[in-house]
Amino acid sequence: MTDATHDPALRSWVESANGHPEFPIQNLPLGIFTPPGGGPARAGVAIGDFVLDISAAPVDEDMREAAAGGSLNAIFALGAEPRKALRARLSLLLTAGSPQRAELEPHLQAMADCALHLPARIGDYTDFYVGIHHATNIGKVFRPDNPLLPNYKHVPIGYHGRASSVRVSGTPVRRPKGQLKAPDADAPRFAPCERLDYELEMGVWIGPGTVLGDTVPVGEAEAHVAGYGLLNDWSARDIQAWEYQPLGPFLAKNFGSTVSPWVVTPEALEPFRIPQPPRPPGDPAPLPYLLDPQDQARGAFDVGLEVLILTAAMREKGMAPHRIALSNTRHMYWTVAQMVAHHASNGCDLNPGDLLGSGTISAPDPGGFGSLLESSRGGKEPVSLPSGESRRFLEDGDEIILRAHASRAGFASIGFGDCRAAVLPAN
Amino acid sequence: MTDATHDPALRSWVESANGHPEFPIQNLPLGIFTPPGGGPARAGVAIGDFVLDISAAPVDEDMREAAAGGSLNAIFALGAEPRKALRARLSLLLTAGSPQRAELEPHLQAMADCALHLPARIGDYTDFYVGIHHATNIGKVFRPDNPLLPNYKHVPIGYHGRASSVRVSGTPVRRPKGQLKAPDADAPRFAPCERLDYELEMGVWIGPGTVLGDTVPVGEAEAHVAGYGLLNDWSARDIQAWEYQPLGPFLAKNFGSTVSPWVVTPEALEPFRIPQPPRPPGDPAPLPYLLDPQDQARGAFDVGLEVLILTAAMREKGMAPHRIALSNTRHMYWTVAQMVAHHASNGCDLNPGDLLGSGTISAPDPGGFGSLLESSRGGKEPVSLPSGESRRFLEDGDEIILRAHASRAGFASIGFGDCRAAVLPAN
Repeated sequence: MTDATHDPALRSWVESANGHPEFPIQNLPLGIFTPPGGGPARAGVAIGDFVLDISAAPVDEDMREAAAGGSLNAIFALGAEPRKALRARLSLLLTAGSPQRAELEPHLQAMADCALHLPARIGDYTDFYVGIHHATNIGKVFRPDNPLLPNYKHVPIGYHGRASSVRVSGTPVRRPKGQLKAPDADAPRFAPCERLDYELEMGVWIGPGTVLGDTVPVGEAEAHVAGYGLLNDWSARDIQAWEYQPLGPFLAKNFGSTVSPWVVTPEALEPFRIPQPPRPPGDPAPLPYLLDPQDQARGAFDVGLEVLILTAAMREKGMAPHRIALSNTRHMYWTVAQMVAHHASNGCDLNPGDLLGSGTISAPDPGGFGSLLESSRGGKEPVSLPSGESRRFLEDGDEIILRAHASRAGFASIGFGDCRAAVLPAN
Repeated sequence: MTDATHDPALRSWVESANGHPEFPIQNLPLGIFTPPGGGPARAGVAIGDFVLDISAAPVDEDMREAAAGGSLNAIFALGAEPRKALRARLSLLLTAGSPQRAELEPHLQAMADCALHLPARIGDYTDFYVGIHHATNIGKVFRPDNPLLPNYKHVPIGYHGRASSVRVSGTPVRRPKGQLKAPDADAPRFAPCERLDYELEMGVWIGPGTVLGDTVPVGEAEAHVAGYGLLNDWSARDIQAWEYQPLGPFLAKNFGSTVSPWVVTPEALEPFRIPQPPRPPGDPAPLPYLLDPQDQARGAFDVGLEVLILTAAMREKGMAPHRIALSNTRHMYWTVAQMVAHHASNGCDLNPGDLLGSGTISAPDPGGFGSLLESSRGGKEPVSLPSGESRRFLEDGDEIILRAHASRAGFASIGFGDCRAAVLPAN
């Protein structure tokens, strides 16, 4: 349900927020930052080009206390009602003409001068695989005769990733070494990855958790979501191809994952909910534990997703990042509620600060493929860049930037903020 | 190197420790406990049938402080030298005739009256697959034509498990529900697991961690190990068979894992190190990053492993648990140092309190298979129990008990303590 906080006519006394492509007053995403003067990391809200320190704002005292910790875990744990109340309060405080402007201004910092941190202490990180076009494309590379496995349309496939190596946007990623084996080689060798790739994913931050043994009805699953962000699930395709059988990806993925610093709340995304796209004729219906009429009616998102690249040569020439993919969250075969309900369906506990990845979200057309493995068709067809360069896979110095924007007539557009990182050479 | 703390003639003034099958004064494993009177959880050392509160003992002040937290993470982070000094000190304090006996006695609690907790806050849990007989046996069930995949003898195969659902011995495990699909069924159904299984594993607790991007030479890898325990990686074989392609086990494993409460230090296991068993002729040599002469010379362990079962009917009849498998850690194809070096070989960071599982350690003979899937040959040949019952897979009320003991002429035998849990019916 949209409310006064979504009113597109709403303007902020923080002038840069008005018409801001990411952070107008209708967005109000949460993050963890250190102000330019230093001090402990704390929770803030992005407003235009600024960050407001929530721990110093005249908001509910429980919330102010939760905001003083160095992670959003405590705010996530509070759940939907306090989070909604915070949004309503911040919207009022930041609206043009607010009588609290003078009180707030000392706690407003230029975002460019702040250090932005990982939003949460991540207990567990689970990566799903709900981008069906990606699953089909990548399946063709690893299993040409059998791209989409028989379980795909029944099971929201997921696996556990590495929590410790998730880093916030801006932290470079070092090219991993690993065992590589060409299909025609007799034996593997240990060398720097030669097929380094990005993956365009939506991140889901878990809010109130569950107790081990409990399940979550799909109709109630979104109550456990605290917000959304962007996730780059860096992947070493050559390491992956050799190691992934029979237990799944391991060193091919756990050398680093990048998340955007801002957590866009479910409330901010409210205007951009759409019906879950109908399954193609012949596809099986989800099992009852994954099926809820309300979730089918508005469980998907219409959020545009972009991948941009900035190579070292482009940077040297002063060129802008070049967009290499344009996709949309509507290409998820399973909804977030289905991911959460499935995850808890065996009694596995979820905890505040857990991170779920959607899996790579590719559009059906080549212009919307969410990884180079897909765009270059397994490395066979290099992707051309305006700098005259081309890429089969990533090279050292390449920076990948993920972006997300949501727009709808009658509402202010909002963005997720950049999820970016550059590739460092192998050690 | 063994030292005075390993002297088999050493006796403790804690009488029950002398000749104790698990916790003689030569063992001194660490754990987290709450004394019978309540109060905060703290670190203790097992000595016979008792626990000594380390946070109240006359040990190094840094160590006493580290011991006052509710987990062993701080002690793990201190590393080998402080841990060795603690062992030497505790050995002296607990030796018969120690002048500190009167000072220590108030801080000694009957283990049976204490609550024993998870030893550490687990950041990430990684499960390996180094039991080659298990990998071969289970490969036969899932891939009859291709049991041991081509990467097995090159790569210490591992994958990320769920950290949040690891529980200490004694916590029951609830039978999960999940998607089950018989090979000849048209579609899956959602129902309680019908092929619930245990897995006999050694757990490895990580001590000092690493920095993201750094690697660990295999010759230095054991410096990152804080200790060892037992791990039951409960597995829902029917859920696993349907979900595991292409990204590995997920809901089949993450509904619960059980660890033993006591962390047996590398020092206590020193007398039980043996050469890594030679690879069968024709097997490839490990790649250089996994090969260290010292590790090959003494990187394995000679620790006997047992699985026992106590069914509800056996419990009712007053019967003792029945041993259904007898194995040994020497059946690991890769050493712990190789597991650690491989894990960090791509720069993935390790942190104090991380848990590594060895994977199921089966002996080559059927009497030493570490899971029911193997013992019952995929459920085809039920295992007979002395109660007149039989088991293809686990039934509600079954309790599984893992045990480990190390013995060698000229040294006192030590044990790991029970890793046990009973199966609760599905919700």
